[in-house]
Amino acid sequence: MKVIITGGFGFLGLHVCKRILAVGELVGADESPHVVRKLVLFDAGSPPKDLPEDSRIEIRVGDITNADEVKSLFDEDGIVVFHLASVMSGQGEKDFDICWKVNVEGTRNLLEPCRVRRDCKLIFASSGACFGERPEGPEMDTTKLLPHTSYGMTKACMELVINDFTRRGFVDGRVARLPTVIPRPEPNSGLPAAFSDVLREPLRGRPAVLRLRPDMRHAVCGYRVLVRNLIHLANLPAAAFAESIDRCMNMPSLSVTLQDLQKSLASVVKDPSMLGSISYEPDAELCAKLSTFHQNMDATRARALGMMGDSSASAIAADFAAEYVDPLLLKPVVEIYEEPRHWLAFSNEHVRVFRVENPPGDTTLMHVHRFDSLYFFFTAAKVQGTKLNEEAKDDTLSCGEVRYGDHGNCLLTHKIHNKGPPVMMCLDVELAGFQSDGNDAPATKRVRIEADSSRLPPGLRLTKERPGANVHNLDLAAGTSWAGRIPFARALFVVHRGAHVRGGLGDRLLKPGDVFFREGPIDMKLEVMGTRRDVALWVVELLY
Amino acid sequence: MKVIITGGFGFLGLHVCKRILAVGELVGADESPHVVRKLVLFDAGSPPKDLPEDSRIEIRVGDITNADEVKSLFDEDGIVVFHLASVMSGQGEKDFDICWKVNVEGTRNLLEPCRVRRDCKLIFASSGACFGERPEGPEMDTTKLLPHTSYGMTKACMELVINDFTRRGFVDGRVARLPTVIPRPEPNSGLPAAFSDVLREPLRGRPAVLRLRPDMRHAVCGYRVLVRNLIHLANLPAAAFAESIDRCMNMPSLSVTLQDLQKSLASVVKDPSMLGSISYEPDAELCAKLSTFHQNMDATRARALGMMGDSSASAIAADFAAEYVDPLLLKPVVEIYEEPRHWLAFSNEHVRVFRVENPPGDTTLMHVHRFDSLYFFFTAAKVQGTKLNEEAKDDTLSCGEVRYGDHGNCLLTHKIHNKGPPVMMCLDVELAGFQSDGNDAPATKRVRIEADSSRLPPGLRLTKERPGANVHNLDLAAGTSWAGRIPFARALFVVHRGAHVRGGLGDRLLKPGDVFFREGPIDMKLEVMGTRRDVALWVVELLY
Repeated sequence: MKVIITGGFGFLGLHVCKRILAVGELVGADESPHVVRKLVLFDAGSPPKDLPEDSRIEIRVGDITNADEVKSLFDEDGIVVFHLASVMSGQGEKDFDICWKVNVEGTRNLLEPCRVRRDCKLIFASSGACFGERPEGPEMDTTKLLPHTSYGMTKACMELVINDFTRRGFVDGRVARLPTVIPRPEPNSGLPAAFSDVLREPLRGRPAVLRLRPDMRHAVCGYRVLVRNLIHLANLPAAAFAESIDRCMNMPSLSVTLQDLQKSLASVVKDPSMLGSISYEPDAELCAKLSTFHQNMDATRARALGMMGDSSASAIAADFAAEYVDPLLLKPVVEIYEEPRHWLAFSNEHVRVFRVENPPGDTTLMHVHRFDSLYFFFTAAKVQGTKLNEEAKDDTLSCGEVRYGDHGNCLLTHKIHNKGPPVMMCLDVELAGFQSDGNDAPATKRVRIEADSSRLPPGLRLTKERPGANVHNLDLAAGTSWAGRIPFARALFVVHRGAHVRGGLGDRLLKPGDVFFREGPIDMKLEVMGTRRDVALWVVELLY
Repeated sequence: MKVIITGGFGFLGLHVCKRILAVGELVGADESPHVVRKLVLFDAGSPPKDLPEDSRIEIRVGDITNADEVKSLFDEDGIVVFHLASVMSGQGEKDFDICWKVNVEGTRNLLEPCRVRRDCKLIFASSGACFGERPEGPEMDTTKLLPHTSYGMTKACMELVINDFTRRGFVDGRVARLPTVIPRPEPNSGLPAAFSDVLREPLRGRPAVLRLRPDMRHAVCGYRVLVRNLIHLANLPAAAFAESIDRCMNMPSLSVTLQDLQKSLASVVKDPSMLGSISYEPDAELCAKLSTFHQNMDATRARALGMMGDSSASAIAADFAAEYVDPLLLKPVVEIYEEPRHWLAFSNEHVRVFRVENPPGDTTLMHVHRFDSLYFFFTAAKVQGTKLNEEAKDDTLSCGEVRYGDHGNCLLTHKIHNKGPPVMMCLDVELAGFQSDGNDAPATKRVRIEADSSRLPPGLRLTKERPGANVHNLDLAAGTSWAGRIPFARALFVVHRGAHVRGGLGDRLLKPGDVFFREGPIDMKLEVMGTRRDVALWVVELLY
């Protein structure tokens, strides 16, 4: 398979490139993984010095507004294009023509050869800047796009065009409406640049003078989760979008103020006095402009399709510090929600679920587990775990494995390196409402709802008994139905293998790692649609 | 002033042309009327035979996708462009490229010279086809545009572009999102063509075979009201749009089924047996496609800005029969709501208000007034009235004149010819809840609310006493405030001269002919904003 990344020399482009090369494959039009043989970085600028050395990379310096140049990239079918090249908002306001040429005509130049070739996918980076005038409240996928910038206008037009190309079968388009990715490692001309400056400059020991008010709210995300989401979006089956003609969706983000970011920074660095100073010199016009941008993007659809969000602004700050400045700036141990590979997937007063995705060769920050936790592993992976002040130890994880850590009694402080491939993927289910009493006996009777508590519905098999939780397996074959009364006071359903289901978990495609919390007694019905794919669930009985 | 109409040889283009020539002037960027010296009809086709002979018309056969040709039209500042040229939905689905070239690049070719010139206005015909996937209920101006056709996609893109051009001051753009204009006098390739066929073919004595289901709903309008609305939109002050960055709005329409239209036809013709037969042979694919189109376009914003809608489907059918087939096909007298120059502006159980706009040289159909009515005249006009079976009589109307007709006792059946210029404009206020008892004495005491009913608030001057209603004048100078308790049980406020007001009629720009119904006692406050324009109101006291 051939992959093209436009804007390939840019910050996001290079990270997408590295992540694809690390994993080595992408899902094609036939919905199977294909080995990436060639990855073209197409960009107008000069190639960056930190380009990975990899024979699969092909450098193409070119002009996206030149249709012939762009067309020459399409020398086979089934190409996957990540179209990230774009004129940004600031430049677009200064120069309408270049904005139109690059963002509209450039995108059309990519779409046309996709239409001539067969089975191409195009993943397009749209922007929250499409939201300008809008009603109060979060920006929804269903909110009308009335941008206040030419940049946003061109992105909104391309959303329409890509939907239409997809409807007509010219291309398989998928559009990620991006929050502002922070921090960019270099200053840029985008209107929300201050949201990068507030992290980058102090971490680099330089003063930041911000031209926005400290209380200005904006929807942001870190690059790591976004790169993961773009590739996840590319890999989804086309059927995942069938409910709507709209292939465009808000990516998960955090709604933060500059002040929030300033605080998040202070909370992860070892010595806040080393940070460059931050001062605010708000520019009224810039503030007015930015206030029309995305402040709180609702990503319900994207999350249901498996896109993830950063757990905290601190995680974004920590990630940038570790990757781009100096890991030693950080405090030696971060909390889980400050660890940038741990993405909060679900939380309430009883449980907190993080999804961990660690690509090959990557290492988490040293982080601390403070609650009894269940770990569900979704990939077979060879990893190296290093506990605080201990030697690194190799470990092998198998797909479908479930572990329990009684960190409520004994903190676990560690970092994990993935010796990969593949991506190491697991769920950390923190039993946040459980207080261990040091007694290992299962406390089942305390929390089951019905008198004859030993009577579980058929199919539910107890596979793990631990102080805070029991884990039961429930396997359902394709095309079958299951119904039963589950007598647990509280349960978390974790999907191991998924299929399209109807019933008590909704009418949806279950995917590995999806979680559902239910309070009991739970009258559960599940119908597994189709004849090809089975469903395997873990039913976690919370014993508190 | 120079005017350009693209698609100028088309059905709508020619009607816009004739109407502009008849009126002779349009409002320019300075918000004053300017004489139209030249009117360019730009079109790719061959000029129609029924082109009006007028020295102001310039014929330009050309290709809108040729930027140089289009640019050459812009040889002065302050041009008003009506951009109606477009590839339609059916053709657009067959040929994506021509749809993009004409609808997107063609529009850009017009916008660019506007940007180079100063003070140009561009009135763009968008389409209800922009609405594809959408929530249940009427299509709102705030509904996200997710078109199901390439045609709709190109229109939605151009809405975005024109908003952006307007925001940047490149052009003063105004976009009318059109319902389907019916009937087109000639068959066309649009997906909703059956909504024209169902009227045109039977009226021409030909059988109509419709490829849609009889119960399929669609939002339609007649050409007359639309032409009027497009010119009204062009003439509005830019400040009228200030509340939103969105210059695009749904035009008023009727939500009808094919069956409704079929019935409307039968109700206005003299002899339904002369009509060609109608049969339905629904095509599943076409039905599915059309069901994604506009069914019920909400035009609250357009109506508040003075755009009007047809009173009934019968009025549309009657207008087409009279104009395009043979007036003798129609029954000799139509109801007011079947008369295509009478547009329903407001109605409830007490009053029914029609706005009548009769351009110079035009004649209404013979129609009947059945209720006591007040007539408010907004232009000085020389007209010729012809009562049924009587000779024509000249009449002179003056601006601000108010008349009363006791048609409840004695029907008025007449037609009015405008010997113009200007457009004859009046409001017919039907006292629909009033039953005349043949006694002419004012019945004021019956319906005033407060004991001391003779005490009207200061400023309110009784100027007309009639059986069904008293008319009071209320004049308010620019920059002043007025407050008073109006003791009427029910009143209609009719705006004679308007300005921006705040208070009991809302925060809005009052325009001549705006009406507001209130039930008493009415504690009215009015603040006339600005220092330039006074407000003059008629307060109609309903005596029943």
